[in-house]
Amino acid sequence: MTHTASTTSAERDAMERALLLARVHGVPGPNPRVGCVLLAPDGAVLAEGYHRGAGTPHAEVDALSRAAAAGAEVRGATAVVTLEPCNHTGRTGPCAQALLAAGVARVVVGQADPNPLAAGGATTLREADVEVVEGVLAGEAAQLNRAWTFAVTHGRPFVTWKFATTLDGRSAAADGTSRWISSPAARRDTHRLRGECDVMLVGTGTIVTDDPLLTVRDADDQPLPVQPLRVVMGERDLPGDARVLGPDAETLHLRTRSPREALEALHAREARHVFLEGGPTLAAAFVADGFVDEVVVYVAPLLLGAGRNAVADLGITTITDALHLRVVDAGVVGEGDETNVRLVLRPPTREGEA
Amino acid sequence: MTHTASTTSAERDAMERALLLARVHGVPGPNPRVGCVLLAPDGAVLAEGYHRGAGTPHAEVDALSRAAAAGAEVRGATAVVTLEPCNHTGRTGPCAQALLAAGVARVVVGQADPNPLAAGGATTLREADVEVVEGVLAGEAAQLNRAWTFAVTHGRPFVTWKFATTLDGRSAAADGTSRWISSPAARRDTHRLRGECDVMLVGTGTIVTDDPLLTVRDADDQPLPVQPLRVVMGERDLPGDARVLGPDAETLHLRTRSPREALEALHAREARHVFLEGGPTLAAAFVADGFVDEVVVYVAPLLLGAGRNAVADLGITTITDALHLRVVDAGVVGEGDETNVRLVLRPPTREGEA
Repeated sequence: MTHTASTTSAERDAMERALLLARVHGVPGPNPRVGCVLLAPDGAVLAEGYHRGAGTPHAEVDALSRAAAAGAEVRGATAVVTLEPCNHTGRTGPCAQALLAAGVARVVVGQADPNPLAAGGATTLREADVEVVEGVLAGEAAQLNRAWTFAVTHGRPFVTWKFATTLDGRSAAADGTSRWISSPAARRDTHRLRGECDVMLVGTGTIVTDDPLLTVRDADDQPLPVQPLRVVMGERDLPGDARVLGPDAETLHLRTRSPREALEALHAREARHVFLEGGPTLAAAFVADGFVDEVVVYVAPLLLGAGRNAVADLGITTITDALHLRVVDAGVVGEGDETNVRLVLRPPTREGEA
Repeated sequence: MTHTASTTSAERDAMERALLLARVHGVPGPNPRVGCVLLAPDGAVLAEGYHRGAGTPHAEVDALSRAAAAGAEVRGATAVVTLEPCNHTGRTGPCAQALLAAGVARVVVGQADPNPLAAGGATTLREADVEVVEGVLAGEAAQLNRAWTFAVTHGRPFVTWKFATTLDGRSAAADGTSRWISSPAARRDTHRLRGECDVMLVGTGTIVTDDPLLTVRDADDQPLPVQPLRVVMGERDLPGDARVLGPDAETLHLRTRSPREALEALHAREARHVFLEGGPTLAAAFVADGFVDEVVVYVAPLLLGAGRNAVADLGITTITDALHLRVVDAGVVGEGDETNVRLVLRPPTREGEA
């Protein structure tokens, strides 16, 4: 549903700008990425705002504060905001009330709020005689917060499972060596994807075997300032000197083998996007229970002919029971002789989903 | 090496046309695909010609015949031809002499003839005071005949190995079922690629196990009018009632397990492009001996977690011995929920190759 006919070009430009602000300044976490641009009645930009994560002001309030600091006249202005203003008092007060109090006359909205706890802002505004236009660049706005949208709609985090494999389905050679199956470009790309999530999830076996640090590094190989929560699943104790227990990021040990229990615990902590990397047994449990929402596969152009399987037994014995996915993206990562293929797959289209 | 500065726009248009004629009318087989356009001194098209396979006139002779039939004046004309005119008497007489006899004044050439037996046409023409421009759209011309060029240069056919796999490297489920791992679109695409080859190669094991017909069908599921040679490799006898022994196409049983011996026998028959499909043991032998020049992998978006491996043991036990390929193409075949990913890979760039 788009209403471009009822928006001005200044408003549409402002929505593009608000989406950019949300994309650049937003962080993974409990709250969605949101951007807001305040426009004077003549279309001039009065102020911009964005949300910087849980506990900081919402984008609308941020923009109003900046307008006030600049001495701009907000009464009669238009607020262009990527997500429907919230209607509830959470860590901050409801944005719909803040916009009303500031005397904003018109609100242009991207994505409707899918969060049942916070929705209703548009209605509140309309009932107070504010003009509201919804659904402007709604697709882009929803894509920006696809994991958050999924999580508040489904009551559990969105799960991305990543694995690396050779062309012939191997994750290591027969003698156990695997450095490096993924190319440097694929490893950098993996860090980029990890940085979009708020949870890094592995099993206790991976900690015992590989002792990974599980931090996320940027393109310059520096740790990100905000690290995802490191979560280790499984009933075994962790070695006291495991690197994952170090100070580089927060770590949580969930003493369960049940994907459902783990996701419930993570949802209770308002986790929105889980990046599941290993090991194969843990991944197989998530697959078997239907808790994998996206699969990212880095295919290395290597043949081993033997070795460790990239994907563990799934209890499937005949072809008609194979787990079917759909390919949403296939492309080459890296350059020259150092390329890997990255495939992104999702479960078959469910009713009512795009 | 391109000489566009020394060609007219009519000549460059004629080369595009000649390439199209070669592509559309050429057939896989001992001879390259070649197209030819004869231009009057004012750039008008006098006649077109193309080669339709071994034993039929070469493109230049075809174009000269058509010009003669139409009563066109060829003396002083320009011949635009996708491949350097041959200089030898094979099944037909040398084209360089035919062009000289017809009084052609200028020859514009795409690819230089890589065949040591036939090369030298440009020199012969120049020595007879014909103006020769070489290397016009040479890259496209060489691509058109890449398998043939490889074969006459390396003294053996170009080998394309195709296999289909699930995301996790399986070709069948644990109970042996595999219909269908490849989507209908991937199967159609495989027939398209088979149709570009002149040999379909399988092992005796595949004949015994699957009893395939090994014919090539077009997009409408009709058999192609010209079928590749069906070649079965291995020391076992073939069942007398094997479908591959039927009248649908010619069949050759090579009683050897040696890829080198098989390729020598096929080269002696002037085979240029072998499409190797199965089984895994035969493919592994070609891989191990370095006789795979291109790998086409159809990756089905399926997970099995167990089952038959798509690639057989290659004698590789440690990661540093893995067979490295480079990705030359990665894309999606088919639409909607029925997509497969097609990867095209080649051995690492060898010195002097593009």
